[in-house]
Amino acid sequence: MMRTRPLKVALLGCGVVGSEVARIMTTHADDLAARIGAPVELAGVAVRRPDKVRGGVPAELITTDATALVKRGDIDVVVEVIGGIEPARTLITTAFEHGASVVSANKALLAQDGAALYAAAEQHGQDLYYEAAVAGAIPLIRPLRESLAGDKINRVMGIVNGTTNFILDKMDTSGAGYSEALDEATALGYAEADPTADVEGFDAAAKAAILAGIAFHTRVKLDDVYREGMTEVTAADFASAKQMGCTIKLLAICERAADGGSVTARVHPAMIPLSHPLASVREAYNAVFVEAEAAGRLMFYGPGAGGSPTASAVLGDLVAVCRNRLNEATGPGESAYTRLPVSPMGEVVTRYHISLDVADKPGVLAQVATVFAEHGVSIDTVRQQGKDGEASLVVVTHRAPDAALSGTVEALRKLDTVRGVASIMRVEGE
Amino acid sequence: MMRTRPLKVALLGCGVVGSEVARIMTTHADDLAARIGAPVELAGVAVRRPDKVRGGVPAELITTDATALVKRGDIDVVVEVIGGIEPARTLITTAFEHGASVVSANKALLAQDGAALYAAAEQHGQDLYYEAAVAGAIPLIRPLRESLAGDKINRVMGIVNGTTNFILDKMDTSGAGYSEALDEATALGYAEADPTADVEGFDAAAKAAILAGIAFHTRVKLDDVYREGMTEVTAADFASAKQMGCTIKLLAICERAADGGSVTARVHPAMIPLSHPLASVREAYNAVFVEAEAAGRLMFYGPGAGGSPTASAVLGDLVAVCRNRLNEATGPGESAYTRLPVSPMGEVVTRYHISLDVADKPGVLAQVATVFAEHGVSIDTVRQQGKDGEASLVVVTHRAPDAALSGTVEALRKLDTVRGVASIMRVEGE
Repeated sequence: MMRTRPLKVALLGCGVVGSEVARIMTTHADDLAARIGAPVELAGVAVRRPDKVRGGVPAELITTDATALVKRGDIDVVVEVIGGIEPARTLITTAFEHGASVVSANKALLAQDGAALYAAAEQHGQDLYYEAAVAGAIPLIRPLRESLAGDKINRVMGIVNGTTNFILDKMDTSGAGYSEALDEATALGYAEADPTADVEGFDAAAKAAILAGIAFHTRVKLDDVYREGMTEVTAADFASAKQMGCTIKLLAICERAADGGSVTARVHPAMIPLSHPLASVREAYNAVFVEAEAAGRLMFYGPGAGGSPTASAVLGDLVAVCRNRLNEATGPGESAYTRLPVSPMGEVVTRYHISLDVADKPGVLAQVATVFAEHGVSIDTVRQQGKDGEASLVVVTHRAPDAALSGTVEALRKLDTVRGVASIMRVEGE
Repeated sequence: MMRTRPLKVALLGCGVVGSEVARIMTTHADDLAARIGAPVELAGVAVRRPDKVRGGVPAELITTDATALVKRGDIDVVVEVIGGIEPARTLITTAFEHGASVVSANKALLAQDGAALYAAAEQHGQDLYYEAAVAGAIPLIRPLRESLAGDKINRVMGIVNGTTNFILDKMDTSGAGYSEALDEATALGYAEADPTADVEGFDAAAKAAILAGIAFHTRVKLDDVYREGMTEVTAADFASAKQMGCTIKLLAICERAADGGSVTARVHPAMIPLSHPLASVREAYNAVFVEAEAAGRLMFYGPGAGGSPTASAVLGDLVAVCRNRLNEATGPGESAYTRLPVSPMGEVVTRYHISLDVADKPGVLAQVATVFAEHGVSIDTVRQQGKDGEASLVVVTHRAPDAALSGTVEALRKLDTVRGVASIMRVEGE
């Protein structure tokens, strides 16, 4: 039987995502009510600039005073789609203090202050849900937190930023350079005017921190995540990747160490084999590959951003939180019981693809090979190409700790016969 | 703070899946306890043949009296991995009556009697979870029921049977015929001695019924699902598919009609373009493609069967059900509020690829084209090949109701100039 008093929702932010949340709450009100077991009502919408509110939201619901809205006391669920650290953080904790649960799409805040927010939610007996914070509409947080709750996840490897995937896909398919591909992404609305957060990997790093924490039941902060952007990936790198039967993706990789005693989280461009399911993720799509002890290899694929897909994730959480509320219960809170330390990048085991410009004379290969051996790095393949007194050496290593690999590169730079290191790229996905 | 009284689990069935559930419950007891908030204890294991129980289960837990086990009164959760209709159905309802929730992997039973089981669970205030019933370890039921609860799903299209995907993949890559590929699947353990349930599409049809019900919030019974097996797919069909840039998959397709007033569910082999994400699902893997109004196009990929993957799904449900129990709440029950009727196959809108053996004489194409026109079926492409007085016509239609398409084929069979219909295959995924 359906309860007749509606659950009241406060919406913080009414941009691309927020306006879509408001629209669906209105157009699909009957469906939402049936799925929740009670009607839901949009009780207020807090915005910075009321003149910019998009169509469909009744004027009487609009306010510029977000704090007063979350303090009203009759709000059941606060939906936070403002983004950024403040005022979002204060508004969310204020919401908990005033008896509301929270649905957030705020990856930056969750990556930085997830533990404190979880603690505040638990203290006040409220829910904190954030499916939309990672990979947009792709159901990922809930499968990791709940469907795989009886399994042991060993690795999460994903394409979690649509902008950079669009740029890399464009470079791969058209042979364009980075700048040209970025211009196209900007023109099509896939990249923002200032693309730093995307192309330097900050956005992906926040998502990696969130995913690693959930996957390994431990705390991983944004600062724990090693981060390299993709602005230095060149058309030549793509040509090298093709020769190896690979493509290049900006990957977020969260791994449990082989001995199980620590975890790592990192974001960087990497070559992956064309046969890997992530290699065929095109345009601005996202996909996350999960390896679990019992479940095996899983992949989740879909649009990683955009107003409608993100709104879908927000509304799925809204339904869950409202159902919990009717049940007078809360969903799973933070699970950080393993308290596994996060190891630095140097301890990550990976492979390098290294292109060297070298003098074209006898003995160079022997010199180079000696440097690898001295650092304990085993070579998988070497390809040598010479022309006009100059030559290039392309070396692909076997798996070794990143510290040994980067140490090798530093030592190679000091060799007289090495004129330059043309490119270094990690190789993943095998 | 952790509760110290353990939650008691009764396991019904201890074959490939059950023994793996028992093993993980023992080896990962601490992880499960931390995730649930209380320890879980295997309280009894009911089997038909105690001499066949696999390693690791203490002898004192084994019983042949499943009914007495579920009636004990101290059982919190019954895990049913027996399969089939009886005695599973009676044991599950008995479990509800005696205060236990149920986790089941039983697709046949859920497809046939899901509504009655849901009603029994609700009547007794218990949970019924069954992630493992569809697509093994791939988190699918929970994302559809919960993550997409705020969205409107319009289509679910999936490869949900690993045996048939292995056979079709083998035919595609090696050019083998059906019998040869089936023999290989049997030798490798991918097909059972009697492969009927898989190759005739019964297994996929049960999953389609479950998926359609969840996706569209309505009741879809096994009998509502149109079903065609894949035993008649030939090497020639694969050759035709290749010429169209397609491959052939056995698909389970659940669709909402364009007017929203009804739904359909069907299982049959179909050509899909190589560019479609489902086309690259190889070997015995499963994948389900979901199209939702706001979320867009999502795909879930992973192993669809096997002891460990299925056990992973069962244990994820076990954790959720145990958490609900500690919260004194239940998860989402049946959601069938839309009460949408299920339309017959004739009303499904699809495309046909038809190969005809025809007399090699003038006017044949005109005759054939007239038959299509009379049935209101528009032709997309025709390819004509002739040799030695015989010829073949390959026609690919535009989209039309299945009844009009099959009516066209019947009429074509009656033409004097048509010597035979060599193959008919639906074309999907565009």
